[in-house]
Amino acid sequence: MLPTQPAELRRIIRAGEFAGVTSGLANGHVQANLAVLPRDLAFDFLLFCQRNPQPCPLLEVIEPGFVEPTFTAPGADISTDVPAYRIYENGEMVAELESVAEVWRDDLVSFLLGCSFSFEAALADCGIPLRHQEARSNVPMYITNIPTRPAGMFSGPMVVSMRPIPQAQIVRAVQVTSRFPDTHGAPIHIGDPDAIGIRDINAPEFGEAVEIRPGETPVFWACGVTPQAVALNCKPPLMITHAPGKMFITDRRDSRLRSHLIAGNHDTNYEDIVLDHDRRGSARSGPRPRRLSSAPRPHVIILGHPGPVVITTRDSTS
Amino acid sequence: MLPTQPAELRRIIRAGEFAGVTSGLANGHVQANLAVLPRDLAFDFLLFCQRNPQPCPLLEVIEPGFVEPTFTAPGADISTDVPAYRIYENGEMVAELESVAEVWRDDLVSFLLGCSFSFEAALADCGIPLRHQEARSNVPMYITNIPTRPAGMFSGPMVVSMRPIPQAQIVRAVQVTSRFPDTHGAPIHIGDPDAIGIRDINAPEFGEAVEIRPGETPVFWACGVTPQAVALNCKPPLMITHAPGKMFITDRRDSRLRSHLIAGNHDTNYEDIVLDHDRRGSARSGPRPRRLSSAPRPHVIILGHPGPVVITTRDSTS
Repeated sequence: MLPTQPAELRRIIRAGEFAGVTSGLANGHVQANLAVLPRDLAFDFLLFCQRNPQPCPLLEVIEPGFVEPTFTAPGADISTDVPAYRIYENGEMVAELESVAEVWRDDLVSFLLGCSFSFEAALADCGIPLRHQEARSNVPMYITNIPTRPAGMFSGPMVVSMRPIPQAQIVRAVQVTSRFPDTHGAPIHIGDPDAIGIRDINAPEFGEAVEIRPGETPVFWACGVTPQAVALNCKPPLMITHAPGKMFITDRRDSRLRSHLIAGNHDTNYEDIVLDHDRRGSARSGPRPRRLSSAPRPHVIILGHPGPVVITTRDSTS
Repeated sequence: MLPTQPAELRRIIRAGEFAGVTSGLANGHVQANLAVLPRDLAFDFLLFCQRNPQPCPLLEVIEPGFVEPTFTAPGADISTDVPAYRIYENGEMVAELESVAEVWRDDLVSFLLGCSFSFEAALADCGIPLRHQEARSNVPMYITNIPTRPAGMFSGPMVVSMRPIPQAQIVRAVQVTSRFPDTHGAPIHIGDPDAIGIRDINAPEFGEAVEIRPGETPVFWACGVTPQAVALNCKPPLMITHAPGKMFITDRRDSRLRSHLIAGNHDTNYEDIVLDHDRRGSARSGPRPRRLSSAPRPHVIILGHPGPVVITTRDSTS
């Protein structure tokens, strides 16, 4: 029996005692896709994610060389706490490992991206059926003719996932997933597959086809496979990802992601930072990180008055 | 009499025929703060913006050396179309110029950030008074004790703007501004200034104090001065900004920013990309860009099938 708390699960994964798929684990907590790239590609990839937030919803970026996801899983180690990793060189997979601590480099930047588990749980909570889960198969995914917004070396078409939705529930499905911008958000397209370049709905590029029953409409969401596919398409000298289905489990609650949209905050809650800062000063439970922590701890620097430089002219507000 | 269309206004600004403040111009269109940094600081600054979307709402990032804001103002030139620029070296202002075309470099990355003009118009539309506008003064701004999330060399406290709101309208003010995540979004704080480290509400660090009348509560929003202040605090070798109040006028409509939140899309509308792509193939009105366009045009590359590499295992959906 696996524990239900993210930190405990990660401890077991780190110890090499679990290397399976993470679907259904730590229910209610956000799971993340992992993409790791060398620093000299990191600006372009970060910009690609910024320009394409639906397929590439950034949960956290860990700065070069560091391994602790300070914001989404303090105390965790991104180089050991994923059940399995894949290593790609020049776009070709060269290894699958249960830890990448031995191959870690000071120039590696880690990107954690939202996955659809969070919004699928919310759809299910609303009584909206998920055919691929009923069929115990992987969601069907398609390469579309919708271009992503290119950034530097990164470009390519969007990959979407498809879920057949009963027509009476389509509006609800749009509403529910709109509340999860950090896990792909609202659908990209509803209906006619051909309109987004999908020639045969029964022949997905990835995953497995599912039945579309009478009275159901195919609904398409941006898919987290997009950034990996785009990145690999560009054949970077080194890229590390999670192995399919074996995601990184964060401490963040699905419900927290949802509330951010309501607050108008994409992925920030400053109250947390202040609280977090206070808490760090006191005793903390759980083991200390094994390695250097990521980004400097939040701290206050009182700026020297920038003088006339930045401000005080009328209408400089922004 | 100045024109009301953004492209016409930019043409006049580019020709050196207008160098004033842009408040109230091109009503209904988004205006942007500008920050330009050398490429070797761009990853850290982009990450800083990603981690701090309320003070640093990114509208567009123009890749190294390019000057056309392809997404928010196609055909514009960021090095000439702002009424006035300030140039900083090592954190000190060394020049104010009406064009930076002559000093442009191939390694400069331009960041366009949302400003509060859009949400102030929406507040006014709802009958919520804006004291600083009534007083024809600049909004009061304060350095808080709320730390931003650091990224690389960039760190420092958040700067906020304050607007006194009648108590009966506070909820409405939160609702209205929540719909503008790309222009600072919901308030950071409501009420007691001391709770966020503001010792004297009558002594703002920037802008001018405004009267808080009986029955009004001070409401605080993240301010776009934050990223400039934080960046200058780190004394980058070169930084270019707009001159206070002299913003870059985009083609984007305020109402479009608003609708993105409803759609659950932070700042992307893929429909636009497809339409834009189509349109680019046909005749386009207006002058061609003066310089090389930014980022490659959206285009479709059909990926080679990534084979077993990316997918097809169960639960790889994301």
